Amino acid sequence: MAESSSSGSSGAESIAIAARRAFEESQLVDPAERNVALRAIHKILNERREEVLEANQKDMEAASALVDQGKLSSTLVSRLDLSRAGKYESMLQGVMDVAALPAPTGLVTFAKELGPGLELHRVTCPIGVLLVIFEARPEVVVNIAALAIKSGNAAILKGGKESIHTSTLLSNLIAQALSSTSIPPTFIQSVSTRSQISSLLAQDKYIDLVMPRGGNELVKSIQNSTRIPVMGHADGICAVYLDESADEQTAIRVTVESKIDYMAACNSAETLLVHESILSSVWPKVAVALMEKNVALRCDPSSLDALQHIQLAAVNCTASTPSDYTTEFLGPTLAVKTVPSTAAAIQHINAHSSHHTDSIVTQSEASMSTWCRGLDSANCFINASTRFADGTRYGLGTEVGISTGKTHARGPVGLDGLVIYKYMMRSTVAGGSLISDHEKGGRGYTHTDISREKPMF
Amino acid sequence: MAESSSSGSSGAESIAIAARRAFEESQLVDPAERNVALRAIHKILNERREEVLEANQKDMEAASALVDQGKLSSTLVSRLDLSRAGKYESMLQGVMDVAALPAPTGLVTFAKELGPGLELHRVTCPIGVLLVIFEARPEVVVNIAALAIKSGNAAILKGGKESIHTSTLLSNLIAQALSSTSIPPTFIQSVSTRSQISSLLAQDKYIDLVMPRGGNELVKSIQNSTRIPVMGHADGICAVYLDESADEQTAIRVTVESKIDYMAACNSAETLLVHESILSSVWPKVAVALMEKNVALRCDPSSLDALQHIQLAAVNCTASTPSDYTTEFLGPTLAVKTVPSTAAAIQHINAHSSHHTDSIVTQSEASMSTWCRGLDSANCFINASTRFADGTRYGLGTEVGISTGKTHARGPVGLDGLVIYKYMMRSTVAGGSLISDHEKGGRGYTHTDISREKPMF
Repeated sequence: MAESSSSGSSGAESIAIAARRAFEESQLVDPAERNVALRAIHKILNERREEVLEANQKDMEAASALVDQGKLSSTLVSRLDLSRAGKYESMLQGVMDVAALPAPTGLVTFAKELGPGLELHRVTCPIGVLLVIFEARPEVVVNIAALAIKSGNAAILKGGKESIHTSTLLSNLIAQALSSTSIPPTFIQSVSTRSQISSLLAQDKYIDLVMPRGGNELVKSIQNSTRIPVMGHADGICAVYLDESADEQTAIRVTVESKIDYMAACNSAETLLVHESILSSVWPKVAVALMEKNVALRCDPSSLDALQHIQLAAVNCTASTPSDYTTEFLGPTLAVKTVPSTAAAIQHINAHSSHHTDSIVTQSEASMSTWCRGLDSANCFINASTRFADGTRYGLGTEVGISTGKTHARGPVGLDGLVIYKYMMRSTVAGGSLISDHEKGGRGYTHTDISREKPMF
Repeated sequence: MAESSSSGSSGAESIAIAARRAFEESQLVDPAERNVALRAIHKILNERREEVLEANQKDMEAASALVDQGKLSSTLVSRLDLSRAGKYESMLQGVMDVAALPAPTGLVTFAKELGPGLELHRVTCPIGVLLVIFEARPEVVVNIAALAIKSGNAAILKGGKESIHTSTLLSNLIAQALSSTSIPPTFIQSVSTRSQISSLLAQDKYIDLVMPRGGNELVKSIQNSTRIPVMGHADGICAVYLDESADEQTAIRVTVESKIDYMAACNSAETLLVHESILSSVWPKVAVALMEKNVALRCDPSSLDALQHIQLAAVNCTASTPSDYTTEFLGPTLAVKTVPSTAAAIQHINAHSSHHTDSIVTQSEASMSTWCRGLDSANCFINASTRFADGTRYGLGTEVGISTGKTHARGPVGLDGLVIYKYMMRSTVAGGSLISDHEKGGRGYTHTDISREKPMF
């Protein structure tokens, strides 16, 4: 690869080439060294805490000034803040938690003897070089670096520009920690400008996967401008559906938590579908519970009608418009629609949602089965809050994000979403193995399953 | 989805919407019906053989005329021909072979109890709607249709324009067969013009995966023009590497078969790397064996020098140029290069190959281990012909193609490369399950592994 790295290369190309080379070198390093690297990162971040918090203070001041000018939301400033109680410790602990997880690579997922002395293994391995684009929170640099190292992938990181001082320093400290280990220091690199991103998106020769974590617009714009595969973490337009046989208490509990527990989360509900047969029974109770929590309801004519006798509804309910059913409100608003059947609810969701997480409240086994089979969503829930859609809650150990794509990894993505596999085949037959030994009158194939306990190499 | 299918939709959009609707409807059909559909397709293709062969005759005549005008290669004409002995039977048999395979969907790959009465299953399911673009061979229509149906994916197919009469008829017969089953007839559709492809590539709302089977240029141009994920089946620039300790017979056998067994195949060798220490021992024997099979060698200075004393070399060996090492010759030419070590061989391959299939000939365990870990190729072979890289030879049951990508599926792709998964979660707790029941002072998570024998629905 050396020939491509001439001094004439653009900055982005040099970064991509360095990442590729770091990845390739790291493949010959004992995977146990990845945990050594994680411990080194933990140590340096612990020792240099004051310095990091000073850099973070600079970002915070710049951001506060922008808030004063009305150019930035104050929510963003609170996300930037690494000095909040417990935040730094939890970032440090995250590194050790990732170290403690089982390695996702080196697992044999398929193993066959093709014939005597000829064995085939399919072994999980890193994807290669990742380009990860994420939001303002600076601790994500550390989190993603830890996941990349654990899974054996080199990574190029681009955080939000508001956290530039913090994330540049964190990234430098990570490189410094790596330089004391067998993992190359360029295994984790970070870039800070948007123009570098567009040049990096052209480096499909060196970068294997782009992971944008952000809204639909970010994901689409990246998909539009690269040949590199994209694992998007986009909007969550999630729904709760109250079926004909919905239990009242379950309906209230699941709908209220799915809506209000953490309204900015992608797994919060934005749409409520109500079976027409419960418009005058369960629905008003659910509506009141929501309105008491200050949720504004945007209702279709039937669900609006059903609330006419309720005083609260006069201020909290309005008629919905079609765009309400495709909006990620991320706040105290819920779009409500009446449907005649579970099949109709599924049809609505498949056409309007982001295929993220949807929950049915029902006591009917038939509806549950139709729901789980017919719904084209990553997470199909029954009588449970949409807020469960999360790698940690699922017991995946950690979470890279929640993929809204339908290939490679879908839904909450754990470390196993950062690996692919390669086939290794070894012949111990004298003179080696040819297909002509097995085909065209040769001895045929045995195709016997063999032990998958450990990879041949 | 009905609202999108207005009469003003473009042709491509209507096709994509019809495919999506067929996919969604099919999700509620018993998966056993997929085999009923395959048997119906087998039956109709068997009954209407004469008609298909007549259509094929038309394509053959048109193609022969183009060959006469020098506008088409005669190889292509022979690939078009369905009337060759055994070809039609083997196409029919292929459908029944796919029917006999185990279903790749409905498998539980992860199952946990999150707490008493709250169970989570990760269950394999179809990806959705596939757009498959392939070469001239008309039987591929039937092959891909069978794989799509078996895996539960709706498909839109675009074959080579030279096979238009045959593939249109095959596609109509498939739709006719489906209309007698519970699978919607629009589950498999085919399009015939290139302009439809570019419109279809914009339908990312309805199409989930594009599978181009063809050269690098086709794959790259598609990756450049769509937001839809692409599973490419591109070039094979495969290498054989003769290590320091290579056994002479193995070196000759593996190199010769990898090169000449089927030169147009993507898993044939295009590059030979030779360790410098065997330039005057093993290499000349291998070179003579290749030249006796009429293979032209394009050699770097050291490997060329080593053949000076060999008469055959005077006509069959020439000096290589840098582009020889990145060329898929698909014919009797082999690029040869001397390397000082296994690590250098790996570096050359990682930088120049298509990451498809590469084989080392060695007796050294250390070299084998370095090879399998350091080589960034889908298929890393030891003392075996590159021609083994194939789904049927691997015992995958069938092959969708050989993916040169590094996400979702890599190397020979069987039916399990056409599926993804969804999470199903069910609460049987009275009042349903909320995260607040488990977190913030709640009862916590048990995260116990549970049976994966069958999906909850």
